[in-house]
Amino acid sequence: MSDPLVIGLDVGGTSSRVVVTDLAGTRLGTGLGGGGNPVAHGAEAAAAAVGAALDEALTGIDPGRIRAAVIGLAGGTQVRKALDPVWPARGITCPVRLVGDAEVAFASATAEPDGTVLIAGTGAIAAQITGRRLGLISDGHGWLLGDRGSGFWLGLHAVRAALADLEEGIETSLTIPIRDKLVGQSVFATRRALVSAMIAAAHAEPPVTLSRFAPLVLDAAVAGDPVAKNLITEAAGFLLRSTAAVRGPRETGPIALAGSLLTVATPLAHRVRAELGARWPAAELVSATDGAAGAAWLAALSLDPSAPHPSTPPSRPTP
Amino acid sequence: MSDPLVIGLDVGGTSSRVVVTDLAGTRLGTGLGGGGNPVAHGAEAAAAAVGAALDEALTGIDPGRIRAAVIGLAGGTQVRKALDPVWPARGITCPVRLVGDAEVAFASATAEPDGTVLIAGTGAIAAQITGRRLGLISDGHGWLLGDRGSGFWLGLHAVRAALADLEEGIETSLTIPIRDKLVGQSVFATRRALVSAMIAAAHAEPPVTLSRFAPLVLDAAVAGDPVAKNLITEAAGFLLRSTAAVRGPRETGPIALAGSLLTVATPLAHRVRAELGARWPAAELVSATDGAAGAAWLAALSLDPSAPHPSTPPSRPTP
Repeated sequence: MSDPLVIGLDVGGTSSRVVVTDLAGTRLGTGLGGGGNPVAHGAEAAAAAVGAALDEALTGIDPGRIRAAVIGLAGGTQVRKALDPVWPARGITCPVRLVGDAEVAFASATAEPDGTVLIAGTGAIAAQITGRRLGLISDGHGWLLGDRGSGFWLGLHAVRAALADLEEGIETSLTIPIRDKLVGQSVFATRRALVSAMIAAAHAEPPVTLSRFAPLVLDAAVAGDPVAKNLITEAAGFLLRSTAAVRGPRETGPIALAGSLLTVATPLAHRVRAELGARWPAAELVSATDGAAGAAWLAALSLDPSAPHPSTPPSRPTP
Repeated sequence: MSDPLVIGLDVGGTSSRVVVTDLAGTRLGTGLGGGGNPVAHGAEAAAAAVGAALDEALTGIDPGRIRAAVIGLAGGTQVRKALDPVWPARGITCPVRLVGDAEVAFASATAEPDGTVLIAGTGAIAAQITGRRLGLISDGHGWLLGDRGSGFWLGLHAVRAALADLEEGIETSLTIPIRDKLVGQSVFATRRALVSAMIAAAHAEPPVTLSRFAPLVLDAAVAGDPVAKNLITEAAGFLLRSTAAVRGPRETGPIALAGSLLTVATPLAHRVRAELGARWPAAELVSATDGAAGAAWLAALSLDPSAPHPSTPPSRPTP
């Protein structure tokens, strides 16, 4: 009989990642699909994106060997229903545990069972982790209702800043690139016509895609633009506030940073790290790596409590 | 040859109104359709809604008699294109002037040529009116980018307030009605599951429909709910700020109030009127009535500069 395998998924607003490993953590398959969050993309598109990533990861693997699966995803029970059909359709019959994206991000960053995770990617959420499970959470309310300090939030405020420049003369270097990305090189008879066209263009696309403007804010802040720098400061303030809502002042577990805005060297990551370090000087700041690998590790732990964390060097050669 | 007729349209986020009159202001036809703003509803749905209202208003009227048309609508040139096809399809060949919803609201409220108009309905905008034409404007940026203090804004913040109650214990009487409207009487295993379901439900519908929660905020404020009262205060502050951005401290022309939040006796209307009166004590506060009638009057003025304002008593009996 073949060794048991596990599968881990990290499903986000802009991509879905899948990893298949054995219980020693050896990677046997990986898959990448589009955004698979049913709240952001709708149930059908989400299931298709996750299914495509699964198919890629399972290429050449007997699905009967999969004994445990963990899927990390923002959202609750309604979200689960949307993705339920993808498993039996691929011959996977083992238990599938749905956990928050925060749990897999934390698990990918550290082998510790307790601490805090702060995510800022397309969305934003802070969470307490206790025994590798979600405790308190703050924000994670989605682009319409929250996600303050996220990539969507930065992108939205970049457009607002461009309008404030055009209409009120609050100058920012964001205006030209935002204009170009929203309405191209079109010529408008009046400034008001330009503003109207930009507003119409911003409303014409799925709102969450405004997160594509977040890198413009990061770049402008690095170049010293005061409006962009203020947005970074404000975003960092929201992320810190969310973290403080789930972490006591004397907690000492690691703080895992996750999401594209915090895991690479952005001015937002720099500022958030500095403020976290000032408020919780004893905390180790760790970075989420591959959430799907974290999810696969959580699945492996459910079968073998001694399964090594992905960051552990392998104790035996890959078969 | 028959007397010339004019047609006026007031196209908003939730309804489209059409009035056909003669040059004396006698109403010969009216029509009502769904929301016809192409930014909010898309070009095709907007044209269909406006077309249906036109068809109703033109019942039994020879379209060849229509000599001037004015359409009031938030938005600019891109918006115009979406509605262009509705006219020739109905045999209307006269010039059609597209003006801002602010211009028709002001024209419906007063015969004065100069002043200020403040609209708070589904959206929100303040505008300077000079010679019955749009001067400076403030906000009107749509639900995604602005419309601060609007019905959408109140509805959005009502949902946020309900989440803050459920998650942070900031009590408000808004929570139960918002919960009931978003997820019905469903039972959830945990408070977190309820919160997730409410977030998913809010994201699942067109965002602008959140404006249907605005009356809940108005009612709760009347009943003394402190969270709702704060939202009213904040909304009034945004509307006042927009007004001050387009009206100098010494201007004396009338201030026209328009939109469902300001033309009926709501706590928001009460507060906005009090603050406008305090800041511009010399200004007459007038209420927009029927924007379509205002638009029809603007169309009549283009043919006959002495055409009577809709508020003028008729000088001759209806034929």
